[in-house]
Amino acid sequence: MLTAQLKQKYELAERLGSLLNTTHSTVCTIESCTGGGLAFAITDVPGSSAWINQSWVTYSNEAKSQLVGVKSETLKHFGAVSQEVVTEMAQGGQERANADYAVAISGIAGPSGGSADKPVGLVWFGIASPQGVQTFSRCFSGDRQQVREQAIVLALEKLIYCIVSSQ
Amino acid sequence: MLTAQLKQKYELAERLGSLLNTTHSTVCTIESCTGGGLAFAITDVPGSSAWINQSWVTYSNEAKSQLVGVKSETLKHFGAVSQEVVTEMAQGGQERANADYAVAISGIAGPSGGSADKPVGLVWFGIASPQGVQTFSRCFSGDRQQVREQAIVLALEKLIYCIVSSQ
Repeated sequence: MLTAQLKQKYELAERLGSLLNTTHSTVCTIESCTGGGLAFAITDVPGSSAWINQSWVTYSNEAKSQLVGVKSETLKHFGAVSQEVVTEMAQGGQERANADYAVAISGIAGPSGGSADKPVGLVWFGIASPQGVQTFSRCFSGDRQQVREQAIVLALEKLIYCIVSSQ
Repeated sequence: MLTAQLKQKYELAERLGSLLNTTHSTVCTIESCTGGGLAFAITDVPGSSAWINQSWVTYSNEAKSQLVGVKSETLKHFGAVSQEVVTEMAQGGQERANADYAVAISGIAGPSGGSADKPVGLVWFGIASPQGVQTFSRCFSGDRQQVREQAIVLALEKLIYCIVSSQ
């Protein structure tokens, strides 16, 4: 039996898939703290190969540079969990996957790794669309699993909103 | 509340993490039908950045070639769901991530896409280790979600067995 959270994630992924399918659009993901969970949610929907071809888990700083071209100066100056880094992750992913939309996620899922200005639960998101990149952040409460699940759900919601707004 | 399946996956990921941490080894994943779910499970464990740096979701044939170097002739001759393709996926991922272990998964999660010789539920796995690549396949029963979840659990179990046997 699915939990309510899994059900919510699946329903969002289904709605997203239907929108991407109708608009003949494609998406890719570039995930750090969610570690592939967003791509996993998107591909849960039958037929998803029509709207997702490839995605990355860029867990380390090196992976962010190597796989989707985040500049090392950006990582050095702003840190991996920053507006600047998710912007470059989303742009790099969109370009390399040749996708209409790209969603980048970088955050501190915890339990360790937090600091005064970047606490555990802080997650930055970047969504690249044909209109450009939009970014936003949230500070989620809860444990590691809860932070990751909330981040995936918010990414799906915001991506749906972005596609609907683009029409 | 976690379902029994999520709990089992987490316990396996925790055991895997402890093994990789103790042996100072790293892993990467190259996923097709599981769409990032194995990487998501591995990164559920706190501190996992010590043993996983990067991973790929290679959903399309093009992604398999582009991201981890699977030869287009191999895809053409044997199909994406084959021993030959998961071997090249695992080898390519291991090399590009410079990881000790790499796990490749390619299968038919359904509900469509099956054929007489490659039915829905068939999943091929490749595990690259310092000793070489081992491959195996299973034909799982159940719906799309169940096929994907069983594939992730089996991949975790086999990877743990592979690391323990390497010691």
